[in-house]
Amino acid sequence: MTRTAPLFTKVALIGVGLIGSSLAHAMRRGGLAAHIAGHARSPETRARAAELGFCDSMHAEAADAARGADLVILCTPVGALQAAAAAIGPALKPGAIVSDVGSVKTAVIRDVGPHIPEGVHFIPGHPIAGTEHSGPDAGFAELFDGRWCILTPVPGTDEQALSTLIEFWRGCGSRVEVMDSKHHDLVLAITSHLPHLIAYNIVGTADDLEQVTQGEIIKFSAGGFRDFTRIAASDPVMWRDVFLNNREAVLEVLGRFSEDLSALQRAIRWGDGEMLFELFTRTRAIRRSIIAAGQDTAAPNFGRNTKTP
Amino acid sequence: MTRTAPLFTKVALIGVGLIGSSLAHAMRRGGLAAHIAGHARSPETRARAAELGFCDSMHAEAADAARGADLVILCTPVGALQAAAAAIGPALKPGAIVSDVGSVKTAVIRDVGPHIPEGVHFIPGHPIAGTEHSGPDAGFAELFDGRWCILTPVPGTDEQALSTLIEFWRGCGSRVEVMDSKHHDLVLAITSHLPHLIAYNIVGTADDLEQVTQGEIIKFSAGGFRDFTRIAASDPVMWRDVFLNNREAVLEVLGRFSEDLSALQRAIRWGDGEMLFELFTRTRAIRRSIIAAGQDTAAPNFGRNTKTP
Repeated sequence: MTRTAPLFTKVALIGVGLIGSSLAHAMRRGGLAAHIAGHARSPETRARAAELGFCDSMHAEAADAARGADLVILCTPVGALQAAAAAIGPALKPGAIVSDVGSVKTAVIRDVGPHIPEGVHFIPGHPIAGTEHSGPDAGFAELFDGRWCILTPVPGTDEQALSTLIEFWRGCGSRVEVMDSKHHDLVLAITSHLPHLIAYNIVGTADDLEQVTQGEIIKFSAGGFRDFTRIAASDPVMWRDVFLNNREAVLEVLGRFSEDLSALQRAIRWGDGEMLFELFTRTRAIRRSIIAAGQDTAAPNFGRNTKTP
Repeated sequence: MTRTAPLFTKVALIGVGLIGSSLAHAMRRGGLAAHIAGHARSPETRARAAELGFCDSMHAEAADAARGADLVILCTPVGALQAAAAAIGPALKPGAIVSDVGSVKTAVIRDVGPHIPEGVHFIPGHPIAGTEHSGPDAGFAELFDGRWCILTPVPGTDEQALSTLIEFWRGCGSRVEVMDSKHHDLVLAITSHLPHLIAYNIVGTADDLEQVTQGEIIKFSAGGFRDFTRIAASDPVMWRDVFLNNREAVLEVLGRFSEDLSALQRAIRWGDGEMLFELFTRTRAIRRSIIAAGQDTAAPNFGRNTKTP
């Protein structure tokens, strides 16, 4: 982790929400950039980011942040990436690397790719890290530590630029995997998009159940429900854009999920205890593997502390 | 919390897994029982419980533990309650209170009620607390602190016995609510049983997806999936019994969930961003209420620590 000189002279962050601000903190910690330029569309976010001081300069125009940067990372919701790319395209320096942090990758290649000029290296990326909080106050340097970042270079991507971007993410604490964008979108559909969708859905179902009051839902949420409310509290714009832009893969895994759920429903209706027991035993093993891989804690209840502070 | 004399001279725990052993620890902390007698069916569990020392005596026969007790709490999976009640029935002292900790209540009244002799007070109970761990090693005194315990007395229950049981649970750190067993089963179907069912289901779906390897599921689980694996690691026997014994309420809320999910599926297919945004915004408010009610932590990612220890 000891670095004699910064990896980049100037890095631009287009968007300084949870991921953008965490990247700024992580870059500072790792000594990765001599100058970090930030852009946020809203004056409030720019003012707050300036106050927090995680960027060296804040800009009202994305192009002004991106101008002269060696690395530009688009950190907006997926639905805003096309406009962001169109805005920065003309300001990009030859040889610069452009990346993003969007949760879908095929749609991002479709939307961003055409705006990247010849001689600039566009390499899509996706750090598998986050919290249910959003905005510039939510960022912290450790967010990417031990998490994976997936890069999905298009065929013909410059090897040197790819190596540099891998070094950057490692410097932010990530582990890095490279894969095809279509495969990324399917893997994330099952490990992230479907979990969010069914979490949002069950919270909505509970809220609509007229025989059970909202007070009861809240009081007795420690029975399991509260776990789902965490990811169902994630940023609504970000997640709307994910579902609008990864439709096919999400519909595919959702079809599987619904099929499996129908089989479980039938097992409950017919009192098939063996089928239930078999499934409930199999799923335990996956939890153990996730803990062994350092991707979750073995502490009961995630080690959460619900004591009044 | 200062108590001049124990609330009970003798309390018997029929079953010393996560809940039974936590009750023993909480009773010790609160000075609630002069003597705690424990029973476990398996010799291994009895030996381990004796080693851990949270009971004053361990018994191979449930009746021996229950004999002479002022309070007997059945802490076995719901499917084993009928046999446990049949075993202790003849040994129960007149005036004793019998309760349980099962996650369903109408079926428990059906199964346990007939085995309770005249003059003994049977008051079903359910502490809404737990972890994904099980067995006598998993218990700890703080498990019930700030959580709710629901009691579902049948009509005609002795008021004094009910008051005493409420005092007992408060002494264990719980808050107490009294309701009808049928309402309990519906409330828990949505706040606990359905969340477990869909968690088990999504983990099963992911495990079966042939285009995505298990290694990929594990590596990228921090995208949301890992949250579900926690409750999908809960005790398989306990949960099989819950679904076999709360069939109607679970099928009712599952029907609602599936309907809502179909509407979401349609919104994704037709690109209805407004519908998605509206739902994703509404669900955020419920999270905030749960945190405000002290039922979950506001710390990002449950405050989980995934650093290698």
